[in-house]
Amino acid sequence: MEAALEEAKKAKKKGEVPIGAVIVKDGKMIAKGHNQREKKQNALLHAEIVAINKACKKLHSWRLDDAEIYVTLEPCPMCAGAIANARLSKMIYGAKDKTSQDELCGKILSSIRLNHKCEMVQAEEFENECSQILTDFFKAKRSQN
Amino acid sequence: MEAALEEAKKAKKKGEVPIGAVIVKDGKMIAKGHNQREKKQNALLHAEIVAINKACKKLHSWRLDDAEIYVTLEPCPMCAGAIANARLSKMIYGAKDKTSQDELCGKILSSIRLNHKCEMVQAEEFENECSQILTDFFKAKRSQN
Repeated sequence: MEAALEEAKKAKKKGEVPIGAVIVKDGKMIAKGHNQREKKQNALLHAEIVAINKACKKLHSWRLDDAEIYVTLEPCPMCAGAIANARLSKMIYGAKDKTSQDELCGKILSSIRLNHKCEMVQAEEFENECSQILTDFFKAKRSQN
Repeated sequence: MEAALEEAKKAKKKGEVPIGAVIVKDGKMIAKGHNQREKKQNALLHAEIVAINKACKKLHSWRLDDAEIYVTLEPCPMCAGAIANARLSKMIYGAKDKTSQDELCGKILSSIRLNHKCEMVQAEEFENECSQILTDFFKAKRSQN
């Protein structure tokens, strides 16, 4: 999760909402990513999508079985769906997304639609740090306006 | 939807699950895409994601406001989330996804999480054709095994 936080900090430096993700397989970090939506003007480029894209390319496989994704913020439905589609076995997040409704992330990951379930765990020891970097970012943004 | 079906046929020719999508803005088709998951070995490359990626690049914007996406099959959670994140105003689908659970697609599109709602409509006149191309594909695949 520390590496995911480093990614979030990279996003912050670029003026992006500070969210980072890393993918680990067999104890090795195989991909990392941070939010690039504004810079690249692309709605798809959340941290998780960037990391999954890199991991698929690295492994030459759309199946990321037995791999885990660490992300600083609970994923949005697009990213939760991507995590499920890529068959990641576990998703570990830092901060809870307080704007999420209807517990969609958990529902998407635990849907048996794909004959696959992804375990969802909060790394509570990182909750404050993952949440604070977002709070600070939005506070600074508001003060600029 | 006819153009989306043409895209689905392109996917079929490549041995991909035949699903196609097109994005229309101001009456003009601005992007199209078909499923490329197997060929590119990338879990993200569903028809909708390919089309949204192209549309963002074409408009140099992550916001696809006032644009509509036509897709031959009801989107999975990843694609429904991407459609919501890109602020598409309307999603028109051909065949219903019989494997989807808990009406996740509709829930994701109608979530007010993003202060944006995407209208979801079935083009019932295309349901049979959009569904048949999928049925034929899986039937042929099973007979090969």
